[in-house]
Amino acid sequence: MAITVVGSVAFDSIETPAGRRERCLGGAATYFSLSASFFTDVRVIAVVGEDFGSNQEAVFHARDIDTQGIERTTGKSFFWEGSYLDNLNEAKTHTTDLNVFAAFEPKIPVAYRDSEFLFLANIDPVLQRRVREQMPDVRLVAGDTMNYWIKDHRDALLLVLKGLDILLINDTETRVLGGNKNLVQAARAVMALGPETLVVKHGEYGATLFHSTTPKSKGAEFRAPGLPLEVVVDPTGAGDSFAGGFFGYLASQPELTPAVYRRAMFYGSVMGSFACERFGTERLQSLTRKEIDDRFILFRELTHID
Amino acid sequence: MAITVVGSVAFDSIETPAGRRERCLGGAATYFSLSASFFTDVRVIAVVGEDFGSNQEAVFHARDIDTQGIERTTGKSFFWEGSYLDNLNEAKTHTTDLNVFAAFEPKIPVAYRDSEFLFLANIDPVLQRRVREQMPDVRLVAGDTMNYWIKDHRDALLLVLKGLDILLINDTETRVLGGNKNLVQAARAVMALGPETLVVKHGEYGATLFHSTTPKSKGAEFRAPGLPLEVVVDPTGAGDSFAGGFFGYLASQPELTPAVYRRAMFYGSVMGSFACERFGTERLQSLTRKEIDDRFILFRELTHID
Repeated sequence: MAITVVGSVAFDSIETPAGRRERCLGGAATYFSLSASFFTDVRVIAVVGEDFGSNQEAVFHARDIDTQGIERTTGKSFFWEGSYLDNLNEAKTHTTDLNVFAAFEPKIPVAYRDSEFLFLANIDPVLQRRVREQMPDVRLVAGDTMNYWIKDHRDALLLVLKGLDILLINDTETRVLGGNKNLVQAARAVMALGPETLVVKHGEYGATLFHSTTPKSKGAEFRAPGLPLEVVVDPTGAGDSFAGGFFGYLASQPELTPAVYRRAMFYGSVMGSFACERFGTERLQSLTRKEIDDRFILFRELTHID
Repeated sequence: MAITVVGSVAFDSIETPAGRRERCLGGAATYFSLSASFFTDVRVIAVVGEDFGSNQEAVFHARDIDTQGIERTTGKSFFWEGSYLDNLNEAKTHTTDLNVFAAFEPKIPVAYRDSEFLFLANIDPVLQRRVREQMPDVRLVAGDTMNYWIKDHRDALLLVLKGLDILLINDTETRVLGGNKNLVQAARAVMALGPETLVVKHGEYGATLFHSTTPKSKGAEFRAPGLPLEVVVDPTGAGDSFAGGFFGYLASQPELTPAVYRRAMFYGSVMGSFACERFGTERLQSLTRKEIDDRFILFRELTHID
């Protein structure tokens, strides 16, 4: 099944202990698309400026990602500058220039209308909602957000949450959105706001899947480990790559059973681990399906007991 | 096989968001012993003061723990006071009174000499070493330590590490001791100091097992998850209870295969999760082997994929 994703396609300047990159291709929708493209067809909705050229577009096309929903307009593309010098687990943001995203009016190309899966990457919840409303018939909707929207745009976000089947956020976001320091209680509070399924990402420690409708005795929670990585070059996009692997795998399956959700969590962790191995999207661009499957086995081995 | 453990037997005053307890039975050797006693015979070496009475001793005897190595002396027992009001993952220490531990000269009862397993709980590395030297013929030695010893008593600690087969410490301790922010690289640096096996405890996220001699391709690393707990009453002793479950299970097995180490990691996580459910040692005192086995299955389910 095809996935339509809306989110940022951007340029990032990144500094990590491994070095610095200026204006490399980035953005949540970019990482998500590249990651999900190893599992299913992906269609992107975003807006870019005049600085987005054929080199950038070629990155999407090399993975057969449909870019007709990427609108070109005058001005500059979304720009983010951040560093991870003290802590590889948390970016320090130096600059966020919305640029062309400030006046973005998302439009869904006709060819995208039959997408059965929709991913609302981390952008203004008002934009997430507009896309959601234009695609009322999708089978499964997942989304991401961040503390800025949770804290300062809560009402708009709450409207988005009502239309989500799956929310993917991190520990801190779960605690803030759920208003509870205890992760399990916070997760339950978040699911009460709409999404039946919640994926809480723990950075290097993996991620936990919560389902509101599964009785606790039947394995309502599932933990995918993080891979202990000897070299973390650049964690930018790891969460979006996780989401791409998770949702991409779901979209590739004929039936969404509990076992499929569990495997999707592992594919999420697999894709997140690859994303960290080089700067920006470099590792996702060079990746092969064989490498993904080999790492899936490594992840399984990492937690498997007889 | 019997385990001899040396470490603190103490009184703790604890404050958490769930409430406060004054002078309850605590100490690393206490939590370790209670936890390990569900798997094998346990013998304790410690020193206590006149405030340690038959009520405290009864807690050990109820679990058939040998206390003849707990020396009684004049003065007060080790006392610790701490709180977890802002962060359940990290204690804020208010008081540490070594009391009778300040002049402790550990002696090994003759009846302990045939112990094949030795656990050096978190105390002054000088004491850990004295116990180690008095038991040269043990089959497997594991130990714990903390940042205070790592930072301010490094030379004494390094001598202990040379005599350890297994070290159990947390993420921060691993990074500080290994002198590297990357956990995998830090783990390797720590193992180069002596222990062939390193267990890094991640608090609520579980723990990772590293073996220095296993090739990476053969699963040198293993991650046991933490159980998402809906109520954490008191995390005091969770790490020592993990160690007790881990080492107790190892001591109960006829052969120390990689599969046994993996199961030991799960038993460690199981015992750590129970310890948090009530104040002090309360939950470990009321626990049954059936509950442990049921939770082991729950943990397996938490990470199992087909």
